[in-house]
Amino acid sequence: MVQQSLSIQPNPVSSDTLRPEASRPFLTWQRILDWANEHYRCRTFSKDEKIPARPGLLYLVQRGAVRMVGVAQVSATHRNLNSRASTLNQEEAFLGFVGAGQPFEIVAQSPFTLHSYAHVDQTAVVWMYWHDLDNWPHFRREVLDAFRYQHQRKLLWLSTLGQRRTIDRLLGFLTLLIEEFGEPCEQGYSLPWTLTHAQIGSAIGSTRVTVTRLMGKLRQRGLIHTQDDNLICLPTDTALRR
Amino acid sequence: MVQQSLSIQPNPVSSDTLRPEASRPFLTWQRILDWANEHYRCRTFSKDEKIPARPGLLYLVQRGAVRMVGVAQVSATHRNLNSRASTLNQEEAFLGFVGAGQPFEIVAQSPFTLHSYAHVDQTAVVWMYWHDLDNWPHFRREVLDAFRYQHQRKLLWLSTLGQRRTIDRLLGFLTLLIEEFGEPCEQGYSLPWTLTHAQIGSAIGSTRVTVTRLMGKLRQRGLIHTQDDNLICLPTDTALRR
Repeated sequence: MVQQSLSIQPNPVSSDTLRPEASRPFLTWQRILDWANEHYRCRTFSKDEKIPARPGLLYLVQRGAVRMVGVAQVSATHRNLNSRASTLNQEEAFLGFVGAGQPFEIVAQSPFTLHSYAHVDQTAVVWMYWHDLDNWPHFRREVLDAFRYQHQRKLLWLSTLGQRRTIDRLLGFLTLLIEEFGEPCEQGYSLPWTLTHAQIGSAIGSTRVTVTRLMGKLRQRGLIHTQDDNLICLPTDTALRR
Repeated sequence: MVQQSLSIQPNPVSSDTLRPEASRPFLTWQRILDWANEHYRCRTFSKDEKIPARPGLLYLVQRGAVRMVGVAQVSATHRNLNSRASTLNQEEAFLGFVGAGQPFEIVAQSPFTLHSYAHVDQTAVVWMYWHDLDNWPHFRREVLDAFRYQHQRKLLWLSTLGQRRTIDRLLGFLTLLIEEFGEPCEQGYSLPWTLTHAQIGSAIGSTRVTVTRLMGKLRQRGLIHTQDDNLICLPTDTALRR
């Protein structure tokens, strides 16, 4: 990962109305980073390390990427919440990435708990209280607009998870991720981070085994490619057809 | 539906940090409603009527409830976008409700399109441009906080849709809806609006037939009830156990 400066930038493919103003004063961002460092509100995490995010605080990804995860507390079949055995049985769902320059927070907690992990090494996260933003009203506005944007992306994500066939959910899921985070590669656009088949399965209500099988099908049909370093790639024509 | 005044109120079960301040100046809300009426920015819809929402505009549900829906533009199997036949084949996913006093907007559109419908008769919607809010900075803040809240709810929703068993997704989905919109009833909390089994299926990646079968199972296990008027009810002990 190339180090990125703190900036809330929805992907260019997103709608104009959610794009940050071109006139964003860069100085504010540098001041916020300086402030975070001065107040020890900055920490770097290694790959898959849990980020101890608490409700009421606002987090900003300064560098790297954060993986959001949801854990079901109960199911229709297993209801013994208090036993250790059932705790081990909990299903973790992959809920998406938060890229560099994007904010995240963890508030809602019932009947699922939300967690955040560093998805790559050297992921740096800055945190603050919402009232800390009283000094930077313009910045607060950008943070809130970024949540508006993330909310719209999640509506699209829900749209694909409503599809009946698992292969449709899989292709929709990959398309949405690459549309948001993809970087140009030889054959089209690729996700800049790896994602295991188990993680993909946990997002689309399926299993690792099924995901592996269906990824093979999508590859055969030329709808996706996998690069040498195991990154998922959407060919340009698939991206355009959509 | 009882007529509700315009107020952005996350449900009491949600976290404190997203609740609007107790000191909200009611006069602002009345002024906004007056302004919307004066400028013909208010319209009442009948049940299942489409609300012609456009990107760049902000909508507020003044009364009734809005149903958000996502439509997949393509699938891994059917790719003839231009033919009428495939258009008829499109899968619609139920994405949730927007209740009275809540804002909504439709921005993101690819590779899915988002739509809004009046879910009940006499649903009244007010609309405005974002820059109209320049006159009401406090109100804009509340609108943006409401989107923060909606975003968190959608993360929980994604958590349940990641669950492998359809019955778990179904119970998780119903619990989340009733947690957010439920009203006290004799046996616990019930959803104040009906939802067809086809609509439920479209939200959780399943079919009408499967939803009907699994709703029967959940009823047998006493995890849900159905009231006379076909409203789905979560018994108090199920709600508490969660």
